[in-house]
Amino acid sequence: MNSFGRLFRLSIFGESHGVGVGILVDGCPAGLPLDVEDFRPDLERRMPTAPGTTPRAERDQPEIMSGVHQGRTTGAPIQIFFKNADIRSEDYEIFKDMPRPGHADFVSRIKFGGYNDHRGSGHFSGRVTLGLAAAGAIAKKIIRPVMVQACLEEAGGDAQIERAVAQAAKDGDSIGGLIQCRIESAPPGLGEPFFDSVESLLAHMIFSIPAVKGIEFGAGFKSARMRGKDHNDLIVSADGKTETNHSGGVNGGLTNGNPIVFRVAVKPTSSIPMVQNTFNFKSGRREPLAIRGRHDVCIALRLPVIIEAAAALILADLMLIEQKIPKVL
Amino acid sequence: MNSFGRLFRLSIFGESHGVGVGILVDGCPAGLPLDVEDFRPDLERRMPTAPGTTPRAERDQPEIMSGVHQGRTTGAPIQIFFKNADIRSEDYEIFKDMPRPGHADFVSRIKFGGYNDHRGSGHFSGRVTLGLAAAGAIAKKIIRPVMVQACLEEAGGDAQIERAVAQAAKDGDSIGGLIQCRIESAPPGLGEPFFDSVESLLAHMIFSIPAVKGIEFGAGFKSARMRGKDHNDLIVSADGKTETNHSGGVNGGLTNGNPIVFRVAVKPTSSIPMVQNTFNFKSGRREPLAIRGRHDVCIALRLPVIIEAAAALILADLMLIEQKIPKVL
Amino acid sequence: MNSFGRLFRLSIFGESHGVGVGILVDGCPAGLPLDVEDFRPDLERRMPTAPGTTPRAERDQPEIMSGVHQGRTTGAPIQIFFKNADIRSEDYEIFKDMPRPGHADFVSRIKFGGYNDHRGSGHFSGRVTLGLAAAGAIAKKIIRPVMVQACLEEAGGDAQIERAVAQAAKDGDSIGGLIQCRIESAPPGLGEPFFDSVESLLAHMIFSIPAVKGIEFGAGFKSARMRGKDHNDLIVSADGKTETNHSGGVNGGLTNGNPIVFRVAVKPTSSIPMVQNTFNFKSGRREPLAIRGRHDVCIALRLPVIIEAAAALILADLMLIEQKIPKVL
Amino acid sequence: MNSFGRLFRLSIFGESHGVGVGILVDGCPAGLPLDVEDFRPDLERRMPTAPGTTPRAERDQPEIMSGVHQGRTTGAPIQIFFKNADIRSEDYEIFKDMPRPGHADFVSRIKFGGYNDHRGSGHFSGRVTLGLAAAGAIAKKIIRPVMVQACLEEAGGDAQIERAVAQAAKDGDSIGGLIQCRIESAPPGLGEPFFDSVESLLAHMIFSIPAVKGIEFGAGFKSARMRGKDHNDLIVSADGKTETNHSGGVNGGLTNGNPIVFRVAVKPTSSIPMVQNTFNFKSGRREPLAIRGRHDVCIALRLPVIIEAAAALILADLMLIEQKIPKVL
Repeated sequence: MNSFGRLFRLSIFGESHGVGVGILVDGCPAGLPLDVEDFRPDLERRMPTAPGTTPRAERDQPEIMSGVHQGRTTGAPIQIFFKNADIRSEDYEIFKDMPRPGHADFVSRIKFGGYNDHRGSGHFSGRVTLGLAAAGAIAKKIIRPVMVQACLEEAGGDAQIERAVAQAAKDGDSIGGLIQCRIESAPPGLGEPFFDSVESLLAHMIFSIPAVKGIEFGAGFKSARMRGKDHNDLIVSADGKTETNHSGGVNGGLTNGNPIVFRVAVKPTSSIPMVQNTFNFKSGRREPLAIRGRHDVCIALRLPVIIEAAAALILADLMLIEQKIPKVL
Repeated sequence: MNSFGRLFRLSIFGESHGVGVGILVDGCPAGLPLDVEDFRPDLERRMPTAPGTTPRAERDQPEIMSGVHQGRTTGAPIQIFFKNADIRSEDYEIFKDMPRPGHADFVSRIKFGGYNDHRGSGHFSGRVTLGLAAAGAIAKKIIRPVMVQACLEEAGGDAQIERAVAQAAKDGDSIGGLIQCRIESAPPGLGEPFFDSVESLLAHMIFSIPAVKGIEFGAGFKSARMRGKDHNDLIVSADGKTETNHSGGVNGGLTNGNPIVFRVAVKPTSSIPMVQNTFNFKSGRREPLAIRGRHDVCIALRLPVIIEAAAALILADLMLIEQKIPKVL
Repeated sequence: MNSFGRLFRLSIFGESHGVGVGILVDGCPAGLPLDVEDFRPDLERRMPTAPGTTPRAERDQPEIMSGVHQGRTTGAPIQIFFKNADIRSEDYEIFKDMPRPGHADFVSRIKFGGYNDHRGSGHFSGRVTLGLAAAGAIAKKIIRPVMVQACLEEAGGDAQIERAVAQAAKDGDSIGGLIQCRIESAPPGLGEPFFDSVESLLAHMIFSIPAVKGIEFGAGFKSARMRGKDHNDLIVSADGKTETNHSGGVNGGLTNGNPIVFRVAVKPTSSIPMVQNTFNFKSGRREPLAIRGRHDVCIALRLPVIIEAAAALILADLMLIEQKIPKVL
Repeated sequence: MNSFGRLFRLSIFGESHGVGVGILVDGCPAGLPLDVEDFRPDLERRMPTAPGTTPRAERDQPEIMSGVHQGRTTGAPIQIFFKNADIRSEDYEIFKDMPRPGHADFVSRIKFGGYNDHRGSGHFSGRVTLGLAAAGAIAKKIIRPVMVQACLEEAGGDAQIERAVAQAAKDGDSIGGLIQCRIESAPPGLGEPFFDSVESLLAHMIFSIPAVKGIEFGAGFKSARMRGKDHNDLIVSADGKTETNHSGGVNGGLTNGNPIVFRVAVKPTSSIPMVQNTFNFKSGRREPLAIRGRHDVCIALRLPVIIEAAAALILADLMLIEQKIPKVL
């Protein structure tokens, strides 16, 4: 469903071209200083200012609707809401009959019997991740001194990201990207062997971000080709620090006190300017489809801050469960 | 925690060298014919008969402790239990002070204040997955005609698996492996956009299997290097079938009616015969450690059936939620 | 936490004197016709128009913020929001140091370290039940033909409710009340023996309504004084109809096809005009406290519609679980 | 479903005349000394030794199947199992066609399509509460110094319990009873306003105990007839102690530091020796039914210890959530 977390619990809602999008954060400790300005830096990192991101002029103005009083969290649920603006819904009418290849158009119609809000992909839109970014900003504050940092390592297989994006844009195409995330100073012992391993929880949250198609921890897929002697991280001190970090900071599903490191594969945006074929459900034939609208050339450019949010949210929950964050700050 | 699922719910328990290991399956529809013999084929696939698996002579005899009457499920929780036997616990005493590199020895001690049952890695043992295999056999029966099939594609980077395993065994080392899983005939529309995407749920369950370090759907990590034009799967018929399957059968978090395909990276077994250095918490120095015990050279050899179980369990839950499986069979 | 339900899931938020109050409804089937007008009848029943209810001029204008498109539910989460207005927050300053007897002032300060929004009792206010009423109106539509009806049976022990309320108001006091709720046409077999008996779920939801102090099903507390011969409801037909209904329509935690009947005890409003003593945390002495503000003489007058909502919400969840309501309407 | 709790989580299973009954306790802090002898006092209080309880010679021998090592909890899930013995299943064959009045026979057949294990009422049997008693004994140890005590106040409306029970037995009938439970020394601030009020959680758990038909907190149903002036509990000291306790120790859904007091109505056992009419589903006619078997005259005699367990289990969960119990003891 649209909620996640045990003690630090999120519920997400909203549509791209409806009234707005938002998030409900339940279980945040009371007494945390919180202001809409706290969301600004992360929201700006998510904004489509970079080349390769959609030219839609989004006004991502967060409003705190509940749970904050006199500048501090009260312990009650915090709702953050983003009103929508600058909407051109007519762009989307055609996708009801001609689903975009690689997109949720077809499956959302099947699942919701055609009642899905298809405008701007509705609840399936990447715009819904605005709420995650805002909730993530809260989580980052409460997990301090734990630090989460994600960055785009390459786009379209190319470490020269700007050039790769520019080329794809010029070609009327899109490209995927690879994001690395690193969590420093997490205490050891977070997570559970079954079923809430740290990897399980991070993967669960991160695979709900649109366009994510893979995740690996530490040496990840390289591990499959390694030998134990080379993969094993030798413990070098009493606090569990290891010489290498092939495990990505997690053993047996639990954090081990070393940096938690994982990489996320992001597929290329499915909506591309170039004409593609798709199935026309009205005519019953395959026909060419031109997608107008405004779409990111490389959605991965906007996801590092969302990946960070996802990671911080999981850490907040786990640290509350392990009593590493007090209930009143 | 040690439970997972919304309508088809698992709770796992037990230790490698304690009384036994088992699983509790809640929410199974009533009326399903079920007998311990139904578990046999999957349990045998998990058994350490292949070269490269531990020589420990496990008697994996499942007992149905509840929830089945006159050969059919009753609708009440089903407990399946496996008594332990053939135990040599003395092998594990040393790891209390000298944690095995790459293993949960250190973190489990930190998390549980030294009270963890360290014998055979206790609740962190791969043996706990016996319960998953049994529960998976039940799930496979109720999701029919949906079919789940996983196989080991390569070990140690080598498609000639037997040879690679034999060489690692000869070297006193271990190797990782790569498993592919394929789910056929799943109905479209399973899953949720947030937070219970099909990828989220599968990844959550699969990362709780010991030694798993990565998962990717469809083109997965290759997606990050692809262009939209090449990645997009063109819909070719009214039932949503696509020309290619780079998405791995999932769009927008929902199944799209094409095969669900994912690959799982399994790290090499951390317990290896060859001497390694580790930190001795008694002496406060790094010292060489020889691991006796009996361990798999390539744990990935035993995991395909567990991956299948994990997938079938998730499918069962999602199909019950979407009312694709009746409450009484 | 502030959420409840398995497949039909609520998350509640908001404060009496903050921006507003609202609810998030997740899991509502797609295709249900829904308009703010659908909330009107129930919201009006909750409004303080009767004598004995607070004169605060609430404008209970619901806004559908998500999950509805072209007049129908989309299958995505539905947020309903009520902006606050007509606020006199200064009335509440004094209760920070002098907690009202019988009120949450003291405990909310302890729990949230003084950061609780104390204005109008914040998230503890009865105003938060507005969201429940709105969500209940949705639930009532999807559980049809199941019907839920609650009414106030007596106030202050007196079946002549208006007179009892008027007398209490005249005395500067408040009174409690007794509400009966009756659910007709619920299918048999809803609920679970452990831990989700129908009584468990209804009681859970209903005890979250402020001022509720007791609940009984069927003969309820009278059962404790009865004999089996008299209490047992004799089955008289093949559909399970019984001659009497001492069980209140529930056997072994499951609905039995007869009307579900329960009664709810509502305590008198704790905020009364008459001067009371309380502990002054500043002076450390017991001192007289005069509560100005505007409060209901008999909060039970406004609760029947909330009790109905609570019951309908539980029924909706149970009927979805038992596949008695389709996922697309 | 058959599980409950957020951080201290129970899963219950088993049948009266199957292999056995048991419980899985997840989330118990590590390091708690625990031995089967710890269960003895509570299990003995539940045993049918008093006049008015069933003469079935139950051997309630608990076995710890997991989660305990060297006499202490390990932090892994604890399974406690009770093998069944002394079974006369033939007594129950007739109830498949002729459901006992007031019993779950009819509804369990409907819900599970006739596949329910009807022997001894299967999973609906009061015997399943053995697991609750055992889990409760664990909870009582971890919530110390919080103390829970329940006792039977009256049976069949009569405070002279033994006499009332003897008379009912002589008449071939059964009687209900009223149990009071008192929790001392609970810290203030446990619980949530929505939806996890202390009353909600206690009521949820307690209504899953077979035969419970009502619960009230503090003045409870009397509150409905009271005035605010009389009901309000005046705070008399800085720790929140109150002069009276009409609220039963709970304000706004949160514990207030005073004793938590509630009363539970238990209906008379539905299985009585005296002949009753019921519907014969084979003949389609109402016919007389004689229930042989062995049944309690007054099941309420055995429930105080189960009510205590239920209360202690809820307290354990809430205290872990509020970080009043450490994760390692």
